[in-house]
Amino acid sequence: MDFKSIIQKKRDGFALTKEEIEFFAFSAANETVPDYQLSALLMAIFFNSLNEEETLWLTDAMARSGDMADLTGIDGIKGDKHSTGGVGDKTTLVVAPVVAACGVKMAKMSGRGLGHTGGTVDKLESIPGFRTSLETDEFIDIVNSCGLCVAGQSGRLCPADKKLYALRDVTATVDNMPLIASSIMSKKLAGGADCIVLDVKCGSGAFMKNQESAKALAEKMVEIGRGAGKKIAALITDMDTPLGKNIGNSLEVAEAVETLRGNGPDDLTEICLLLAAKILQLAGAGDFEECKALAKSKIADGSALKKLAEMVKLQGGDENYILNTELFPKAKFFRNVVAEESGYIAAMNTEGIGSVCVALGAGRQKEEDAIDPSAGIVIEKKTGDYVEKGDVIAILYCSDEALFDAAEKQYRKAVTFSSSKPNGIPLLLDVVE
Amino acid sequence: MDFKSIIQKKRDGFALTKEEIEFFAFSAANETVPDYQLSALLMAIFFNSLNEEETLWLTDAMARSGDMADLTGIDGIKGDKHSTGGVGDKTTLVVAPVVAACGVKMAKMSGRGLGHTGGTVDKLESIPGFRTSLETDEFIDIVNSCGLCVAGQSGRLCPADKKLYALRDVTATVDNMPLIASSIMSKKLAGGADCIVLDVKCGSGAFMKNQESAKALAEKMVEIGRGAGKKIAALITDMDTPLGKNIGNSLEVAEAVETLRGNGPDDLTEICLLLAAKILQLAGAGDFEECKALAKSKIADGSALKKLAEMVKLQGGDENYILNTELFPKAKFFRNVVAEESGYIAAMNTEGIGSVCVALGAGRQKEEDAIDPSAGIVIEKKTGDYVEKGDVIAILYCSDEALFDAAEKQYRKAVTFSSSKPNGIPLLLDVVE
Repeated sequence: MDFKSIIQKKRDGFALTKEEIEFFAFSAANETVPDYQLSALLMAIFFNSLNEEETLWLTDAMARSGDMADLTGIDGIKGDKHSTGGVGDKTTLVVAPVVAACGVKMAKMSGRGLGHTGGTVDKLESIPGFRTSLETDEFIDIVNSCGLCVAGQSGRLCPADKKLYALRDVTATVDNMPLIASSIMSKKLAGGADCIVLDVKCGSGAFMKNQESAKALAEKMVEIGRGAGKKIAALITDMDTPLGKNIGNSLEVAEAVETLRGNGPDDLTEICLLLAAKILQLAGAGDFEECKALAKSKIADGSALKKLAEMVKLQGGDENYILNTELFPKAKFFRNVVAEESGYIAAMNTEGIGSVCVALGAGRQKEEDAIDPSAGIVIEKKTGDYVEKGDVIAILYCSDEALFDAAEKQYRKAVTFSSSKPNGIPLLLDVVE
Repeated sequence: MDFKSIIQKKRDGFALTKEEIEFFAFSAANETVPDYQLSALLMAIFFNSLNEEETLWLTDAMARSGDMADLTGIDGIKGDKHSTGGVGDKTTLVVAPVVAACGVKMAKMSGRGLGHTGGTVDKLESIPGFRTSLETDEFIDIVNSCGLCVAGQSGRLCPADKKLYALRDVTATVDNMPLIASSIMSKKLAGGADCIVLDVKCGSGAFMKNQESAKALAEKMVEIGRGAGKKIAALITDMDTPLGKNIGNSLEVAEAVETLRGNGPDDLTEICLLLAAKILQLAGAGDFEECKALAKSKIADGSALKKLAEMVKLQGGDENYILNTELFPKAKFFRNVVAEESGYIAAMNTEGIGSVCVALGAGRQKEEDAIDPSAGIVIEKKTGDYVEKGDVIAILYCSDEALFDAAEKQYRKAVTFSSSKPNGIPLLLDVVE
């Protein structure tokens, strides 16, 4: 097959065949076509897009370009959730144990954080001893044993997506709905679960800044998942303010544990219950309200927290850190950010706050950057809260005091004050199923 | 400057600044930006094109990306011609000596043939001893001494164009008028002449298959040339049938010499006079008809042929081959193509005939292919001619008899017979100035 003629066909607005799409994906995975031809095709796709069939073929081919997780060794229904990425998004740490406590298996592969959003794998690795790099057999054993496991994505997961994403990132071809959707969904298909709930974040801290684009992405991903034979739904949820109070790796684990104890912030608790209920509903555990009540009961009776502690132990981590989060080492330094005026917090530039967190050492600018597990931010006042001059609105945590001045300045820039109370934004914006 | 943001800007339909266009061209020339980013930008340009200013900036930057010919050492007005490439197009070998005999200097840099079209440099190299690789000083000395010189393009001529053309060729981004026009014109600007006449070929043997696209290209190139301060005009001429009778390197030199003796085929003679007259007119030698008469007189009095012989001698070639073209070695084998039916030749697929010639050894499929100087075709019957069954319509020349069967078959396929005489196509289709 001649790659140039594939580029030309897409350039001229024609749909590609299944064979051509597969040739594209496998050539990218095996690096048998030069990058300059791949990037020319990506730009042609940016302009002429991919239709529904082409998108499904591409997703499927990218999923098959590397190792596919074979979860047949796991008894029962396998659930998975995916978030498009936000700030303070520790929902997996709550949802997975809740769902597992309800009897639906959660066999989840997660990525690391990059840019202003964090990654579940990084958060879990703040627990001493915790291993996220697991062979398939061990992964399956852990799921069978305690009902859940969160592993890092193997290097051979979706190499076609890995290659194409890296190229898109440097050739201004990221912003195309079928390419974004197929990139996410290829990893979900390779992950092998039966029921998938997508949490599509929307707002100033998300990749999708408005509800229209978030909904379009959700619809595209649900379409792909259904086309591939999965039970799938998407919740579109607010990311105009950070989720919960804590941002940063061990800080977020601690907040997830509090939420599993029933003492979490309202927004985080509510979103976790919605996501868990939707997975349970897809798995056939009842209607949505029944499932939500079931999920709630597993927090109330402590069984969900117990599941998380079991999983941590089975993955080599010290479960005492879950049972007593005071064990997590504190950051060496902290800095209170104090309100310089009175008024309501009208808005938070959540991507900006994510970037402050990265600057404090809690995240990565580049893939190879190291992470400081104790660094981060505790947000004391959020959008809609009334603040008196002199109140602490946030506490910054860091191992290097020299970083505070710039971080504090940047944090202040991300917060807007107003004399009137802003209208609230609902947490759940839409459901696509 | 960040290349990704330049790609994104063009992708989103914005015009680039002069600095951004220059960064693009110089990065291509110096290979300081990866190919995958260059090709993504080329595809974005394919979709959103370049405006008049951007095209001029790109042409100018590509011209300046390598060596610029400094022709200030040449006395008087310097003329140049460029053909967009055809089959049997040996006009430079006639036009340059005619113009030089009229007192206007012709300092021409020419390319090699690729694909179905031949190159002037290859044709001249069929003369024993002829050197086309010249240092600038020698090039200028020869022009000052005899009024003309035809040299090969140096390796450092327009490296940005060389790089971008090679990428466009493999990424389906050739067919964009501003990119085609700037590629040609960058080499003309780097060539340094004052007056430039473009011969834009149109028809089955040309890159531009119809008159609309040929005119659009001509207009774009004239616009660029004028924007760069050149005296410039374009003739749009027919390439629906091969030009003259002979195709192949030494065969074409011999036909050019016949034309300079006043015995050339009518079509070739006419086109050469038109091109020469237009250059002379731009150089201020009179109105178009006066210039055409002047050009004609230099063929009639033998001074143009003398100029060619002088040039050949100064470039190390044996001028006896010009004075007596019988000295050129004949191809080892020939094959007559005989008409299998009677009727008019209604059409010739001229690109197909060019490809037969390449197959016989007279041209190149790839840059590194060697050329057989004596191989080629002498066309005995052309479009509009009446042919009796059994007449020889063409003679194929080759050094390898085994190639004849396929070549004859392919030649026949390129010729269409009809019982009625086809309408004639004028040689000169349009003038853009």
